[in-house]
Amino acid sequence: MGSFQGHALPGSFFLIVAQWWAVKYSLWYATRRKKSASAGRLATRTTQRCLEVIEGAAILSFSIIGMLAEQFAAGGPKLRLYDYTEHHWEQLNNWQHATMYLFFALSGATTLTVHTTEFAPLALDRLLLAIAFFAEGFLFLYHLYGRDMLDVHVHQLLLYAIFGGALISFMEVFHRGNILLELLRTTLCLLQGSWFWQIGFVLYPPSEVKWDLQDHSNKMFITVCYCWHLACALVTVAVLYCTVCCLWGCVALHLCG
Amino acid sequence: MGSFQGHALPGSFFLIVAQWWAVKYSLWYATRRKKSASAGRLATRTTQRCLEVIEGAAILSFSIIGMLAEQFAAGGPKLRLYDYTEHHWEQLNNWQHATMYLFFALSGATTLTVHTTEFAPLALDRLLLAIAFFAEGFLFLYHLYGRDMLDVHVHQLLLYAIFGGALISFMEVFHRGNILLELLRTTLCLLQGSWFWQIGFVLYPPSEVKWDLQDHSNKMFITVCYCWHLACALVTVAVLYCTVCCLWGCVALHLCG
Amino acid sequence: MGSFQGHALPGSFFLIVAQWWAVKYSLWYATRRKKSASAGRLATRTTQRCLEVIEGAAILSFSIIGMLAEQFAAGGPKLRLYDYTEHHWEQLNNWQHATMYLFFALSGATTLTVHTTEFAPLALDRLLLAIAFFAEGFLFLYHLYGRDMLDVHVHQLLLYAIFGGALISFMEVFHRGNILLELLRTTLCLLQGSWFWQIGFVLYPPSEVKWDLQDHSNKMFITVCYCWHLACALVTVAVLYCTVCCLWGCVALHLCG
Amino acid sequence: MGSFQGHALPGSFFLIVAQWWAVKYSLWYATRRKKSASAGRLATRTTQRCLEVIEGAAILSFSIIGMLAEQFAAGGPKLRLYDYTEHHWEQLNNWQHATMYLFFALSGATTLTVHTTEFAPLALDRLLLAIAFFAEGFLFLYHLYGRDMLDVHVHQLLLYAIFGGALISFMEVFHRGNILLELLRTTLCLLQGSWFWQIGFVLYPPSEVKWDLQDHSNKMFITVCYCWHLACALVTVAVLYCTVCCLWGCVALHLCG
Repeated sequence: MGSFQGHALPGSFFLIVAQWWAVKYSLWYATRRKKSASAGRLATRTTQRCLEVIEGAAILSFSIIGMLAEQFAAGGPKLRLYDYTEHHWEQLNNWQHATMYLFFALSGATTLTVHTTEFAPLALDRLLLAIAFFAEGFLFLYHLYGRDMLDVHVHQLLLYAIFGGALISFMEVFHRGNILLELLRTTLCLLQGSWFWQIGFVLYPPSEVKWDLQDHSNKMFITVCYCWHLACALVTVAVLYCTVCCLWGCVALHLCG
Repeated sequence: MGSFQGHALPGSFFLIVAQWWAVKYSLWYATRRKKSASAGRLATRTTQRCLEVIEGAAILSFSIIGMLAEQFAAGGPKLRLYDYTEHHWEQLNNWQHATMYLFFALSGATTLTVHTTEFAPLALDRLLLAIAFFAEGFLFLYHLYGRDMLDVHVHQLLLYAIFGGALISFMEVFHRGNILLELLRTTLCLLQGSWFWQIGFVLYPPSEVKWDLQDHSNKMFITVCYCWHLACALVTVAVLYCTVCCLWGCVALHLCG
Repeated sequence: MGSFQGHALPGSFFLIVAQWWAVKYSLWYATRRKKSASAGRLATRTTQRCLEVIEGAAILSFSIIGMLAEQFAAGGPKLRLYDYTEHHWEQLNNWQHATMYLFFALSGATTLTVHTTEFAPLALDRLLLAIAFFAEGFLFLYHLYGRDMLDVHVHQLLLYAIFGGALISFMEVFHRGNILLELLRTTLCLLQGSWFWQIGFVLYPPSEVKWDLQDHSNKMFITVCYCWHLACALVTVAVLYCTVCCLWGCVALHLCG
Repeated sequence: MGSFQGHALPGSFFLIVAQWWAVKYSLWYATRRKKSASAGRLATRTTQRCLEVIEGAAILSFSIIGMLAEQFAAGGPKLRLYDYTEHHWEQLNNWQHATMYLFFALSGATTLTVHTTEFAPLALDRLLLAIAFFAEGFLFLYHLYGRDMLDVHVHQLLLYAIFGGALISFMEVFHRGNILLELLRTTLCLLQGSWFWQIGFVLYPPSEVKWDLQDHSNKMFITVCYCWHLACALVTVAVLYCTVCCLWGCVALHLCG
């Protein structure tokens, strides 16, 4: 993961998931508000459930692919944990990332189970999502030892988005279906995704100009920059929400008319 | 902002907003309690909505003016971010303050949208207010590097009021219309305003006597002083609340009689 | 306050208040559960309100006495804040303690107002109590500079009880009348009281043997000791609760028979 | 407790309690959902209450045994607190552990009282459990002075599980009977148990190879390892939950048929 691509990949993943969430939750909120006979036909419980199952399956499969890639791609530890000849742990970074994927895999599997069977309470998927975000943040927290100041700082800023997402997911266990919490989580996920890209640009700049990782004014700029990412994420979610609401209004009108 | 005026200006802004909030929330609480035919005529939903729209528009326009002032006033960066000739960031402080205004502008725009259309859930305005306060506190938090002890301390004390306001606003998402939370937020906003003035007096004293920014007994005094500001804010809100309630009682009586 | 008596006095105050609370809340819970005609006569709303008013008046008057004592007792600053001849703040410790009393006075005055008039929502008294505890803890937090290790530690342990009390009081704003929260607050208040006594014994031992304020094993012992205080506070509240419930059971039986 | 056995013992205790909880809460949730005539006969309130009483009695007796063992087993302080001849505290570690047991004893006694009499509100048992976990974590927090880096780190990781358990128990005071919170507490208790074993293996390895307690890569590995313990705890609870639900489904079917 110590490369531009290694940060762009998870960043893109979070960006896609967040946009998918923004559309999904906006659509459900729109259908809930304008309940009519025709709307009822389109967005029934069955459709919702089906979408959730697809989402769960997608997250599960991507996480498994991620885990396999971390283990068996070039330079991976290939499931070996300890190098007994040279007495050191084998590729701890890869094991760390594989562990992060593991928790998202657990979250995806839970979403699948919760929405295909009637085995467990619905809110379980949010609890596991909260735990997955928490584990991600937890591993990042102990990931920063002995790095440059700016490197530590950009990862610490990432932690706000990650732990924020974990907290909001946990609150959704008790306030399931609250559109504001859902959109806030979406915003934080979007922020996380775009910030991963930013980290890639800062630590592995594609251009020739390197960032001075010890300069304090860079740190101040990055902090301001983080707030701009947050503002952009807020605006993006707002635009997606409005688009979906308008489109749905047209569709509903057309179907009724 | 490195001047007495630079602290007095936002201080006055927060003081005015807080007093406006104290009057508004007291009035609404009074009308909710003493619901009568005549009262109903005065303080209808329409009036409330109208006031909210005016408030949102006012916050939005002041924030935009603030952003423009930070950018284009004498010494501002004029939208230039990086000085390529001398290789340093252009006026990061101004960019920071403009970012703070940006979030309050987003909050004002949301209030406007929420109360003019039926697009989004009502509580969204409190969520954006919470995010605006949070972003303000977040930027202040990483704003204190390499300053004198007392300078850092007065700004840290400010953070209590800012993050307190963010937390209370976030709680209002779930407890909208709770008069106690509304007045507590008002109190913290008043505290923030008066403390901005205090910071101005400490760091840029108008008189000739300077404060010793490294003296520990000054730090202890300032901490006590902060509590007095809090007590004054509490008393001010209480007085405003009582005045509004009494006046409204008289008006209601007069209209009924 | 730098003496054994200076710690024993507030300690006794908190111990008395906590025991009063334990009896009061137990009695109300008992009367609420066994509602009968005769019980109704005894413990009417009027009696409750009357008790609350007396409590508020007592807290208010004790706080005012405390403020006056801190100001005008031997060695007090006599309302003078700054010594212009020697250029230092006048008795900051006394001002600090007077400020703590000020917030408890505000809390007492609020309790008085809330229960004599119908002006403000009931839960306001808990909010002001939370603010009073918070201000007390806040001032203690910035009170510990340059002291010995054990001195700092015993005061830090005190902060757990104080901020715990503030948090529980704040939660009571939303869960007013929850017996568990009321008894937990009582327990923390009792803990605070007995810990003030313990601090007195540690820092100003009446016997000739002094504590070594730099010894780490003393710090470990004090931590264990704090837990014993907590356990004792829990048991004391439980015993008071059971006694009141039993006595009330007898009284109610007698009145009905 | 400075031995492998000293960590394996409490670890096993928490593992057993957690598995018992997983089975108990799953069973109750299953019976609540599939309420039928035959199910009603099996899992009545009386059975539930009986199980709770047994659980309380078991926790109480084990805690008392633990306290006695810490005091009177070989090397214990035998209730002596201070060694006046050599002027040092007597076996503070044992006193610390005895104090931890004391709070679990209080919790067990409360469970007993709450479910045998109708004296106190039901949620009191969760409050005392929260306090017991909190006191355990609190004592561990001040237990780490002057140890090796890895030693401190493994105990700090333990604190996440302990304080997490305390927080979830406290939330259960307000959301009693929420299956998700109950299973989350169970998971954290299981994590605590298995992590005690892990600590034993790290600090007192049964094999001849010792861990380098100052090596940073060991610290990183241990952090990843903690996440695996969490994942295993989640899977174990899920498996137990599914098994109990399936078995109960069969039993209920059989009884009805």
